[in-house]
Amino acid sequence: MVAEKVDLIVFGEKILPAAGGEILSGHGVAVAGARIRAVAPLVELRQRYPGVAELGLDRGLLMPGLINMHTHAPMSCYRGLADDLPLMRWLEDYIFPAEAELTPEVVYWGAKLSMLEMIRSGTTSFCDMYLFSREVARAAVDVGMRGWLGEVLYDFPSPCYGPPEEGLKLVRAMAVEMADDPLINIVVEPHAVYTCSPGLLVASHDLAREFDLPWIIHLAENREETKTVNGRYGKSPAVHLAGLGLLDNRTIAAHCVTISAAEIALFAETGVNVVHCPESNMKLASGVAPVAAMVAAGVNVSLGTDGSASNNDLDMFGEMASAALLQKVGRLDPTLLPSRTALAMATVNPAAALGLAGKLGVIAPGALADIIVLDMNAPHLTPMYDVASHLVYAVRGGDVIHSLIGGRVVMRDRRIIGVDEAEVMARVNGFARDIAALF
Amino acid sequence: MVAEKVDLIVFGEKILPAAGGEILSGHGVAVAGARIRAVAPLVELRQRYPGVAELGLDRGLLMPGLINMHTHAPMSCYRGLADDLPLMRWLEDYIFPAEAELTPEVVYWGAKLSMLEMIRSGTTSFCDMYLFSREVARAAVDVGMRGWLGEVLYDFPSPCYGPPEEGLKLVRAMAVEMADDPLINIVVEPHAVYTCSPGLLVASHDLAREFDLPWIIHLAENREETKTVNGRYGKSPAVHLAGLGLLDNRTIAAHCVTISAAEIALFAETGVNVVHCPESNMKLASGVAPVAAMVAAGVNVSLGTDGSASNNDLDMFGEMASAALLQKVGRLDPTLLPSRTALAMATVNPAAALGLAGKLGVIAPGALADIIVLDMNAPHLTPMYDVASHLVYAVRGGDVIHSLIGGRVVMRDRRIIGVDEAEVMARVNGFARDIAALF
Repeated sequence: MVAEKVDLIVFGEKILPAAGGEILSGHGVAVAGARIRAVAPLVELRQRYPGVAELGLDRGLLMPGLINMHTHAPMSCYRGLADDLPLMRWLEDYIFPAEAELTPEVVYWGAKLSMLEMIRSGTTSFCDMYLFSREVARAAVDVGMRGWLGEVLYDFPSPCYGPPEEGLKLVRAMAVEMADDPLINIVVEPHAVYTCSPGLLVASHDLAREFDLPWIIHLAENREETKTVNGRYGKSPAVHLAGLGLLDNRTIAAHCVTISAAEIALFAETGVNVVHCPESNMKLASGVAPVAAMVAAGVNVSLGTDGSASNNDLDMFGEMASAALLQKVGRLDPTLLPSRTALAMATVNPAAALGLAGKLGVIAPGALADIIVLDMNAPHLTPMYDVASHLVYAVRGGDVIHSLIGGRVVMRDRRIIGVDEAEVMARVNGFARDIAALF
Repeated sequence: MVAEKVDLIVFGEKILPAAGGEILSGHGVAVAGARIRAVAPLVELRQRYPGVAELGLDRGLLMPGLINMHTHAPMSCYRGLADDLPLMRWLEDYIFPAEAELTPEVVYWGAKLSMLEMIRSGTTSFCDMYLFSREVARAAVDVGMRGWLGEVLYDFPSPCYGPPEEGLKLVRAMAVEMADDPLINIVVEPHAVYTCSPGLLVASHDLAREFDLPWIIHLAENREETKTVNGRYGKSPAVHLAGLGLLDNRTIAAHCVTISAAEIALFAETGVNVVHCPESNMKLASGVAPVAAMVAAGVNVSLGTDGSASNNDLDMFGEMASAALLQKVGRLDPTLLPSRTALAMATVNPAAALGLAGKLGVIAPGALADIIVLDMNAPHLTPMYDVASHLVYAVRGGDVIHSLIGGRVVMRDRRIIGVDEAEVMARVNGFARDIAALF
């Protein structure tokens, strides 16, 4: 019998195949092309696939790469430009004037910088909303990162595509062009209920349905948004969407802080997916999203960092901790959002939201080979009674040692492969000098 | 003129001399013995002290080592043993049974492990409360870490010192013995109002006054404590202490979550120092301490991680971020607890609480040479518009490269000097196997 072709065997001391699942010891993962071929005892794999290259860590933990479900990757250029300000002052005095100078070049390099940070902290897939998204896609291809990317749509002219009607055309063109890309997935992204007319919302949802794409929107982020939308339509943001027939399982709603119990029930019934962004919600003082209630009601909730201008990092390990801690203190109940739930929100839940349950966010035969290996042999991770507890409450992005995306090694021994990190940082530092000069 | 003796010149690209202060570029710090001799342009220092050894980082930031004002260092042995549980179940089903097996050996190695974690994440001083505190002191001396250490006092027999009356004798003996220790400072630590009789509280405060030591107590950590104390004394914990005449500027009160506006005014008036432990307060669902209100009232507030059994790490950079973010979301005001305030809470404020303003928590001639150097040349710290923003919102412990305590290099290029880290981890892993077998 001829052995099947395998490109790489990846291993750690332990493997976490899926959030909440059993831990494997002494196992390895055989990777063929972009996918996982087998998960089996390491000795067995070595016999079955002799002479295959290996990448591992004797005291390491192998697990699925994390999925950051809400980013504005190019905004790394504005990280720490202004903090501790009221939302409208932050936006109107800093972010909007800075974004008025936006060029495709700034988007490309800013996005690339964020991808380096994400890979370094264990994220292998991200779901991004920004302007000039073709540049974000180009950066993702150059870095080798898996992205769900969309061009932000709204009722006013865009520095990228000009008049509003051109936005849908651009997204349609990108969806056609990139339909077979192994890393890039196009999504349809109306900005929010208060920046998009009902017509644009419906037309964009039609486009998403036509191409079978996720439809992603900021929803009910804070009290001001809910007040504005109520004033305009006499309805909350979620009820407004429901009235337009836009709540279904291709809908991915970011934030959902000011959401009622009735709206949670509506989300559960219609299959709407939610993305929780705890650190951004905290920093911008938006409030505490009722995540535990959503999870209890059966809503599929994922995690995102939001942009690094309002976070100010993209570390999904830290974000899992923040999600668990915020929910407990926000509801004065330490049992809410336990570590396994937080872990699911960064792995299997986003995979389900993106229609890839069992193919992404897990270590299993046939799944995409998006794999990270962490060093657990460190004082801050000693001792280890429970892997899930450590992954949420004690591991941080810097503990990730190796990373594979689609079977390709993108980080080995904390060295990024195939990207000149110094060049990326120098480019963004150059843009930052121009940005700082605006203020 | 004969040059003064200097042992080491430490440098980075930038220096943050004190929280909220001006940033120096191209400067260095000359260290003589345990103290800082000079802060001056690097070229000038090299001329003034030729041939002196150097430690630095060209793209680094040099700043004061952080001060963790509330730890239970030996509890690293219980990190992740149980999480996501109601407080009393966590304590009664896990922590108390585990602590019943406590030995001086477990305390020594657990404390040592925590110190390695603290040094690795930029902390150079810590203020600890636990049993068998002589072992914590011994570990601190062996590691070379600066500690404010006390034996926890309460109304019931201690596995360390036996009957309650022996506790004060032990603390007195330690205060005498260690009076001249360059690293160890003894503090007096009644556990809490609900575990210490008025007699013990008063006697311990007398002892603190006699030796001019800080007097440290858990106070108003959650609603249950306040209810218990109200039930027993008809007063809140803080008002109970005030009635006993125990609120003054040697008092350091940890937590202070359930504190009224009147009590905040009382703290400001009497000079009581507060320690805020945001991540522990979140994880145990204790609530959001009114930190911004305390700061506004002029109360000196510091930061602590609490033990790693309820955090679950000792990273003070992450703790600064959590403090800032929690305050904003807890009061729905993004302007509260800005980055410079958070930074002060981990540097100059604890120094003031410990009676060492200007001598600790700052980079200045005459101050203790407790210095860290961080690598700021990383994707997650690029670009950098504002140093304080990055230190609070984006830097994490893993970014610390070098650390000095009292002029001695304790970490160089992330390698701990003079401690066998593998041995410490192996010892604690051994104890953890026994602990896990209890459940």
